[in-house]
Amino acid sequence: MRLRELGEFGLIARIERLARGAARAAGARVALGIGDDAALLRVRPGEELVLTTDAAVEGVHFRLGVEPPARIGRRAMVANLSDLAAMGARPIGFALAFAAPPSLEARVALALARGAAREGAAHGCPLVGGNVTRAREVSLAFAVLGVVARGRALRRSAARPGDRVLVTGTLGAAALDRLRAARGGGAPRHRPRARLAAGAALARTPGVGACIDVSDGLAADLAHLAAASGVRARLDAAAVPVPDGFAAACRRLGLDPAALALAGGEDFELVFTLRPGGPSPARLARRLGVPVREIGRIEPGRGLALDPPGALGGLRRRGWTHF
Amino acid sequence: MRLRELGEFGLIARIERLARGAARAAGARVALGIGDDAALLRVRPGEELVLTTDAAVEGVHFRLGVEPPARIGRRAMVANLSDLAAMGARPIGFALAFAAPPSLEARVALALARGAAREGAAHGCPLVGGNVTRAREVSLAFAVLGVVARGRALRRSAARPGDRVLVTGTLGAAALDRLRAARGGGAPRHRPRARLAAGAALARTPGVGACIDVSDGLAADLAHLAAASGVRARLDAAAVPVPDGFAAACRRLGLDPAALALAGGEDFELVFTLRPGGPSPARLARRLGVPVREIGRIEPGRGLALDPPGALGGLRRRGWTHF
Repeated sequence: MRLRELGEFGLIARIERLARGAARAAGARVALGIGDDAALLRVRPGEELVLTTDAAVEGVHFRLGVEPPARIGRRAMVANLSDLAAMGARPIGFALAFAAPPSLEARVALALARGAAREGAAHGCPLVGGNVTRAREVSLAFAVLGVVARGRALRRSAARPGDRVLVTGTLGAAALDRLRAARGGGAPRHRPRARLAAGAALARTPGVGACIDVSDGLAADLAHLAAASGVRARLDAAAVPVPDGFAAACRRLGLDPAALALAGGEDFELVFTLRPGGPSPARLARRLGVPVREIGRIEPGRGLALDPPGALGGLRRRGWTHF
Repeated sequence: MRLRELGEFGLIARIERLARGAARAAGARVALGIGDDAALLRVRPGEELVLTTDAAVEGVHFRLGVEPPARIGRRAMVANLSDLAAMGARPIGFALAFAAPPSLEARVALALARGAAREGAAHGCPLVGGNVTRAREVSLAFAVLGVVARGRALRRSAARPGDRVLVTGTLGAAALDRLRAARGGGAPRHRPRARLAAGAALARTPGVGACIDVSDGLAADLAHLAAASGVRARLDAAAVPVPDGFAAACRRLGLDPAALALAGGEDFELVFTLRPGGPSPARLARRLGVPVREIGRIEPGRGLALDPPGALGGLRRRGWTHF
């Protein structure tokens, strides 16, 4: 069925139904969901609200027909949840502004919404509202709400000279997967996750400085963190953790593994800094429940210093830019 | 300058600057605005959070080159604030997901954002975050947060048989203005406002039933209210308040004034119901600070009953639908 046949209100009713199911699964903070002029959510004293928005646009962030739509919706939701993880926040609900041409198959629209709603519900973050509109291209604009204990939110701007730079998990798998899929055909198989539990644990850990999630690429995002903090980040390319078998898989495709791990993007790992004398990476890993690796230092100055300087090879240093 | 030249980060920095000015004007609930992974907002005990999203898309909701971009941004923000007004909520901050092709003039992008940010700031609702992305068409997706005392939010679904139906202000000016501009050329001159103060006062008024804002058109939105409440709304077309000189201006264009007032849309007035024995319209008007007119009744049944049945003339009864 095309959206033209299902109609705006038909689409809203269908999304409402899937959102209700997701909300039941996700819990209790929703006082009023889809169906009114706006959603109502409950908040508790001593908390700060965190609001993040991000959009996924056809032809820019995803291609319909290449990747299953539920997976596209899921991935877009992961990107939003990852922004909350980078603040140390717990998600409580999200709204979705959906735009599409009337000729879009309704099952594609619903699968996009379902993928997002299921990923949200799996993290206690139900779809509580939204909006649908006609447009020439398909896009999903998210508004995700979270909460964090007052004064505890992790920020990009809190790095200081002398801090160590650490990262959770491994880098490069998402980029390798995209490149492999683009060359050999087939959908990407990598399933990224937002590091919500690790982010929340970091927000409770004394001695943590700044934090950002890796969405544009490790080098680019660490450069963003350094810029926001007014410091220089020195990144040891050889220390960047990659998945098992990553180097061999890269070489089979003629790719430089170190460069791909630095520039890949959509890893959704957390990069953060630790004050001198803070916990060891091993102790932190136990506390966060994920592997943690030390990959650099914060110094006086500006920008990003790569060791070795040519580690990015021919790849873009600045990460993704939209215009 | 094109967005291509200004760049994504240039655009974000410019929007951040205008948002900071707006936030200073709007007040104190922002703990952390644009520049991090998400925005932080403060909340108080005893409040419920209200989240609304709405998108404005080029060629659907606005035409660049016809209307000044700051006015387009302002109008889109009014539509979002109006959703909060219809809940009786007070806005506290908003995020904007902006999409545009790289060829868009940067001053147009900034004027769109500025129009929205200024309208928000004028109502205590600063621009606190957002996102920019490349797309083929220009669009603005809003996520607006508000607060309302716990249990006090106005809902669409609370109308009961026996309620009176009332409306604030006058209907039809926005539609007349759009039609006049479309026929004679020139930009619309009507400046709609969100009825935030009236909505907040309604939420504190005993005996108020359901509420919705008029965005699609009075008849369509009252039908939405009736559907959400599981009742029938009877609307007296002759009682619908219109601006001074409205009938004469309509007739000069060969338009039916009653039909236009019923179907126009973008009036952003509030339609609400009152339990039997509640305050008189005159007393309510004093309490709300706006004119209030009784225009109908709630009955057992379903749907919308128009008196006279042909009052909409040839105009669409169901209001705007996107697909």
